[in-house]
Amino acid sequence: MAELEKELKEYLLDKVNRARSTLRTLMSLTTEVKNRTLLRAAELIDQKREEIKEANQRDIERAKEMGLSKAMIDRLLLNDKRIDGMIKVLHDVAKLDDPVGHIDEMWTRPNGLKIGKMRVPLGLILIIYESRPNVTVEAASLCMKSSNAIILRGGKEALNSNKILVDILKQAARENGFPEEAIQYIDNPDRRLVWELLKMEGLIDVAIPRGGESLIRAVSENAKIPVIKHYKGVCTIFVDKYADLEKAYDIVFNAKVQRPSVCNAIENLVVHKDIAKEFLPKMAYFLTKAGVELRVDKPSMEILKNAKLPEGAVIKEATEEDYYEEFLDLILAVKIVNDLEEAIAFIEKYGSKHSDGIVSENYSNVKKFLETVDSAAVYANASTRYTDGNEFGLGAEMGISTDKIHVRGPMGLKDLTIPKYVVLGEGHIRDDFGVPEEWKKEV
Amino acid sequence: MAELEKELKEYLLDKVNRARSTLRTLMSLTTEVKNRTLLRAAELIDQKREEIKEANQRDIERAKEMGLSKAMIDRLLLNDKRIDGMIKVLHDVAKLDDPVGHIDEMWTRPNGLKIGKMRVPLGLILIIYESRPNVTVEAASLCMKSSNAIILRGGKEALNSNKILVDILKQAARENGFPEEAIQYIDNPDRRLVWELLKMEGLIDVAIPRGGESLIRAVSENAKIPVIKHYKGVCTIFVDKYADLEKAYDIVFNAKVQRPSVCNAIENLVVHKDIAKEFLPKMAYFLTKAGVELRVDKPSMEILKNAKLPEGAVIKEATEEDYYEEFLDLILAVKIVNDLEEAIAFIEKYGSKHSDGIVSENYSNVKKFLETVDSAAVYANASTRYTDGNEFGLGAEMGISTDKIHVRGPMGLKDLTIPKYVVLGEGHIRDDFGVPEEWKKEV
Repeated sequence: MAELEKELKEYLLDKVNRARSTLRTLMSLTTEVKNRTLLRAAELIDQKREEIKEANQRDIERAKEMGLSKAMIDRLLLNDKRIDGMIKVLHDVAKLDDPVGHIDEMWTRPNGLKIGKMRVPLGLILIIYESRPNVTVEAASLCMKSSNAIILRGGKEALNSNKILVDILKQAARENGFPEEAIQYIDNPDRRLVWELLKMEGLIDVAIPRGGESLIRAVSENAKIPVIKHYKGVCTIFVDKYADLEKAYDIVFNAKVQRPSVCNAIENLVVHKDIAKEFLPKMAYFLTKAGVELRVDKPSMEILKNAKLPEGAVIKEATEEDYYEEFLDLILAVKIVNDLEEAIAFIEKYGSKHSDGIVSENYSNVKKFLETVDSAAVYANASTRYTDGNEFGLGAEMGISTDKIHVRGPMGLKDLTIPKYVVLGEGHIRDDFGVPEEWKKEV
Repeated sequence: MAELEKELKEYLLDKVNRARSTLRTLMSLTTEVKNRTLLRAAELIDQKREEIKEANQRDIERAKEMGLSKAMIDRLLLNDKRIDGMIKVLHDVAKLDDPVGHIDEMWTRPNGLKIGKMRVPLGLILIIYESRPNVTVEAASLCMKSSNAIILRGGKEALNSNKILVDILKQAARENGFPEEAIQYIDNPDRRLVWELLKMEGLIDVAIPRGGESLIRAVSENAKIPVIKHYKGVCTIFVDKYADLEKAYDIVFNAKVQRPSVCNAIENLVVHKDIAKEFLPKMAYFLTKAGVELRVDKPSMEILKNAKLPEGAVIKEATEEDYYEEFLDLILAVKIVNDLEEAIAFIEKYGSKHSDGIVSENYSNVKKFLETVDSAAVYANASTRYTDGNEFGLGAEMGISTDKIHVRGPMGLKDLTIPKYVVLGEGHIRDDFGVPEEWKKEV
């Protein structure tokens, strides 16, 4: 990779230093100031709706010229509904409890020393994201509420949209005593800038890439700073021998069909052999009628080949690769297993540790599943579609972590902070090792 | 860096796969089994004392032949006192509450869905450490109690000592139904193996290097997996204008003199200008009498030049670099500041975000210091020497994290686990989107 020119390095360092210079101020901002800023930003977005749409239109036109895919252009679009969505996010984040300064616990040691854990911001957060300009507002508002400074690096295709949104956030900040330099946007599209930022150990505290797997992988490969990753969701539901099948039909249907393009939708259905003959034909009927293509193992095919299915139903034989695949589409891989152990082993092998569920009325099986399946969210008798900050009651989220340190699952406001230790003494010294009494008499 | 030969890669993958194969079993081990294993290991270490000392002697002899420094050889040594220390650690860890399976909180959503946060092990932890063989027992026992699998990579100079300790742990495991393959030791001294392990994303969940700054930096530079870092401690105590000076003398003395070679000892003393004339001469007397070399700024020198000091007192003018330095020795850098703000800015600039304290009886100053100083542990009126798992009441620790994600400060047993979400439903589906009623009548 070519070295970065001096001016570009300076451009970056300037942004980083401006952001860092606000850290101390941010830590002592009141919740009131932060909320006022967020609500003012919401107001401004509403007032400047037409300007925002105009800026966005310029991005859309350029994207069309550049021949970007329809899906990309759709993600880029800011219509009134999406603008309303951003306004709602700002209101929602303003309503959330402020985690900063919260003492999670405090205890007294036998020597009288009081030790507490106080939540503080992570510091300076780098957000790297792709086309969706609403992420600018979502990510920034969460960082602002949790007193973190932020460097935003959006996709170049959304530059005009992102810039006007950042300007609005900065204006709201200025008007309300929130340090506007805490919000920095990298508007130079040069890719090397990202790699340079990812090397700034000690200056940037954590990077959060939001986007497809290839973006996240590239960030993770190049980073010298900690990265919180949000990889894919290969989610599975296991329908146990002891399942209430009526619940199972709805849960599997919901988890696959309601919104197949998201990470908490299921890609795999695993069925206990003892109920497969009863369950699979009906389940397959419902799913294929909703347009789901099934990719099934041989035993399932055996059961389904004579089943009553809607016209045009597509059922293929599954390959080994199908079970690893995040389809993000109306496709579901199906497998029959002999027992709970085999179902858990299946999830361990093919799953991505995101969200996995069991449908069962058997107490011991549910307990074992919940305890031993190593996923960010494990479910009993509910659709995996609930893995989401709002649905869990955390409020807006920064994404869904598939990492195994710092945070697993929906990353809410609280996860943008971390406890530091606060120690209150009254002249405490370790092992009673102080200035010898006789020395004190000498001066 | 030269590519690793196929056999070496296979050797590593075999170890990693053996360790990973135990993860599911580990998650459902009872606390009883874990404690029995730890206590049996303590017993075996006591019984095999002579064998351990013999193995250690072989390491010591080789280290002498290789011309290792006295300090290195001292760290390598296992005498009866250190063996007793390891036995005590095993007993202590057995006594700690088992964090695995602990539900930190659980709440019910308006729709009746129950959401809980259950602590689970991190998975497979790679510990990279240097000469001290007692780390083998400390690190392994904490991982075992928290149901993590572990790959140990000790220094080659301690190979014989480490191997006998690992054998003992494995024997204790075997005898008590603890999966012995959960403990793996990399006995091939080839450095490239470490770099290879650090690339095993998805196979190794986190790396914890324990050792000097250069080791930690090298690990962090080369890792594609998350690393929890324990960097240096450049700790500061600020003696405020409103300090109770009698407390200040003892606190500063304790923090510098009691054990200067450790990371929670102070390297910098910052003094408010209004009390400097009263405080500094006496403080300097006590410190220099204890053999501390002072490196002071000009205003301090001005105050100290006519002060009564013990014979042989060494006071030099400080350089800018001195304030950044982790002396780990009887040396202290001193600076006079105009106010609290300047003291906080000093810590922000020169400190390492480890442990920093204020000595003051002024409520507002203490509050501001504790809230805005961004260190893993912030102190009011106590020595920074308390930053330690045992002193904080967490029990044995894996080290003191200077990172800003996952854990700050002493990394105890609980920090070797992380909450996953457990979701309990009764057929819950999102947005009431289930199989249409009329479809259900069709099959």
